[in-house]
Amino acid sequence: MSSTAITGIATLVTNDPSLGGSPLGRIRDAAVVIDGDRVVWTGESGKAPATDHRVDAAGRTVVPGFVDSHSHLVFAGDRTDEFNARMSGRPYGAGGIRTTVAATRAASDAELEANLTRLLTEALRQGTTTMETKSGYGLTPEDEARALRLAARHTDEVTYLGAHVVAPEYADDPAGYVDLVTGRMLDACAPHARWIDVFCERGAFDGDQARAVLTAGRARGLHPRVHANQLTHGPGVRLAVELDAASADHCTHLTDADVDALAGGRTVATLLPGAEFSTRAPWPDARRLLDAGVTVALSTDCNPGSSFTSSVPFCIALAVRDMGMTPDEALWSATAGGAAALRRTDVGRLVPGARADLVLLDAPSHVHLAYRPGVPLVTAVWRRGVRVL
Amino acid sequence: MSSTAITGIATLVTNDPSLGGSPLGRIRDAAVVIDGDRVVWTGESGKAPATDHRVDAAGRTVVPGFVDSHSHLVFAGDRTDEFNARMSGRPYGAGGIRTTVAATRAASDAELEANLTRLLTEALRQGTTTMETKSGYGLTPEDEARALRLAARHTDEVTYLGAHVVAPEYADDPAGYVDLVTGRMLDACAPHARWIDVFCERGAFDGDQARAVLTAGRARGLHPRVHANQLTHGPGVRLAVELDAASADHCTHLTDADVDALAGGRTVATLLPGAEFSTRAPWPDARRLLDAGVTVALSTDCNPGSSFTSSVPFCIALAVRDMGMTPDEALWSATAGGAAALRRTDVGRLVPGARADLVLLDAPSHVHLAYRPGVPLVTAVWRRGVRVL
Ligand SMILES: [Zn+2]
Ligand SMILES: [Zn+2]
Repeated sequence: MSSTAITGIATLVTNDPSLGGSPLGRIRDAAVVIDGDRVVWTGESGKAPATDHRVDAAGRTVVPGFVDSHSHLVFAGDRTDEFNARMSGRPYGAGGIRTTVAATRAASDAELEANLTRLLTEALRQGTTTMETKSGYGLTPEDEARALRLAARHTDEVTYLGAHVVAPEYADDPAGYVDLVTGRMLDACAPHARWIDVFCERGAFDGDQARAVLTAGRARGLHPRVHANQLTHGPGVRLAVELDAASADHCTHLTDADVDALAGGRTVATLLPGAEFSTRAPWPDARRLLDAGVTVALSTDCNPGSSFTSSVPFCIALAVRDMGMTPDEALWSATAGGAAALRRTDVGRLVPGARADLVLLDAPSHVHLAYRPGVPLVTAVWRRGVRVL
Repeated sequence: MSSTAITGIATLVTNDPSLGGSPLGRIRDAAVVIDGDRVVWTGESGKAPATDHRVDAAGRTVVPGFVDSHSHLVFAGDRTDEFNARMSGRPYGAGGIRTTVAATRAASDAELEANLTRLLTEALRQGTTTMETKSGYGLTPEDEARALRLAARHTDEVTYLGAHVVAPEYADDPAGYVDLVTGRMLDACAPHARWIDVFCERGAFDGDQARAVLTAGRARGLHPRVHANQLTHGPGVRLAVELDAASADHCTHLTDADVDALAGGRTVATLLPGAEFSTRAPWPDARRLLDAGVTVALSTDCNPGSSFTSSVPFCIALAVRDMGMTPDEALWSATAGGAAALRRTDVGRLVPGARADLVLLDAPSHVHLAYRPGVPLVTAVWRRGVRVL
């Protein structure tokens, strides 16, 4: 183990609310010291303790590594033609999740793992140091378990999403598919996952089915999270709060009762603007949630169908432009908010004892993440204390 | 001089309309050969001639270097606080172009040049191999001439924009300021610029003033381009066409007569979605222009006030999502369209004899520029035949 001080930081964002008078816990002209895989000290640059190594931030910004709490990275195939047709106003016959299911089932383990690690690396180079990912393109016990096994080799945050859509083999027997998801598929998957998720939406799983999936998973030690209220109003958000899900994800179509439920519970609202961007859908109203006191996370939803971005900075820029978040709120939601959506306190903040997951931005302020949209500002990344970019 | 073949290109976009049945002139499984600073051959990968060097694109995509025909890079200072206040719904007293004018005048040549080259390098790393830039933050003969002199060291495409806003010293005498812009300031600036531009807009310069500026510039050998119809309807677009300006830039608020004028002339409509993104303004309607037969270019408008992005890929993603462009059209507009807006035929396309300005994308298709928004896909860049990334 050796210690490193990063000094000369114009703005250090710690997310320690006891510092600096805002949730971001900003320190100006700061330093952060890491030892092994942990942060051990933060403070004014001139007061940094002696360390083995020293890195000069040269007036740039350090923020916590992004915590992307919602992605779908275990898949094969590409849906470029479907995207192109949608954006070009041309009809497109096939497409949809089932295209990806067929390609994923047909792929080898090596192919799936290569695609997964390529996307995780791509995200890491953009500052994402913690990334949740899900199954959901296998839809058989074997294919779902395989996806989770592969994902678990590369991230601790693995979610069983057998209830993504009804598998094509069960098109005429959705109840039978729910039995499979809560029975033999769950048996195969539970050992490899931390979370259970369900797409609670018209055309996917209704409230009763979603409840059956989540409670079965919970009985096997998986904690719930829910794809809720993305395309229409529905019972997903209230079900998530009722079951103390860690997160209700999407939250695009909310009633006042939904907002009240979120405000009264521990469930985080995870907003995924990449999906609205790539499908030209209406934006979720982050302002409404924040004003009601709801904890909001911001993630990419990276997947080949509806949001093929791995860029948290891009999602921050959208959240500020189109969802009523301030630049401060958007950064908090993409770091501490993502951590809350994963019920983690060791990531998403830079305080003594936290994991040394840091991003150096080529900018004097974190506001540049929104002020300079599309510009790759991430110049260095440390994960668990190791510089990886 | 030595020759290099880039082989194994999944999709090569040439913008040669005689190839591949679309304006993009696509070649599948292609190679491109460069010799010195020129493209000398394109075709099927297997038929590439022998060369001194060989680069394997490994199934990725090559497109022409982006031609960004509209930016404002000669400035000092930062307007982070103003942006933050605007996006956070807080009042902000000072701000605006005049803040940047004061900072720019106070800066040394070295400071201005360092900022300029930093931004040009940042753009180059995102695939921009030709970049126009303007004066407009000096607003005295000496400060405007200085900006142009500095810009001309780094790009051939330099635009005199003394008529950006009325200089603060002339707040009560706008006619006097137009006399200066068309008189002593023009004398100082004409030797250093190729283009003359004017911000024709309520609160800046009206149609008569804009005409005076552009015709005076033209008499000194500068070719016109116009900031037109950004914030309101106005005479800018029709004036641009009347004076055969190379480009009418912004084109956000257009009447049918404006569209007809553009369709009947040679003037390119340059759309700048970064500005609408960063000011939460309504989008220009690219579809309407394209359907009318207007040539459309797509550029960043990179500047510290209203569009601090240097990312052409980001602008392509916005154009597809919000302006009705197909992914093909957006790429064409950001390459060949930008070249047309600069009346250039040597850049913006990859045909024998064209400048060897190439971008290698880490993607099997150019559609990924819109399909994967925010993701830095540019993995290699050649400018004038030299690999710079
Ligand atoms: Zn999802
Ligand atoms: Zn401009």
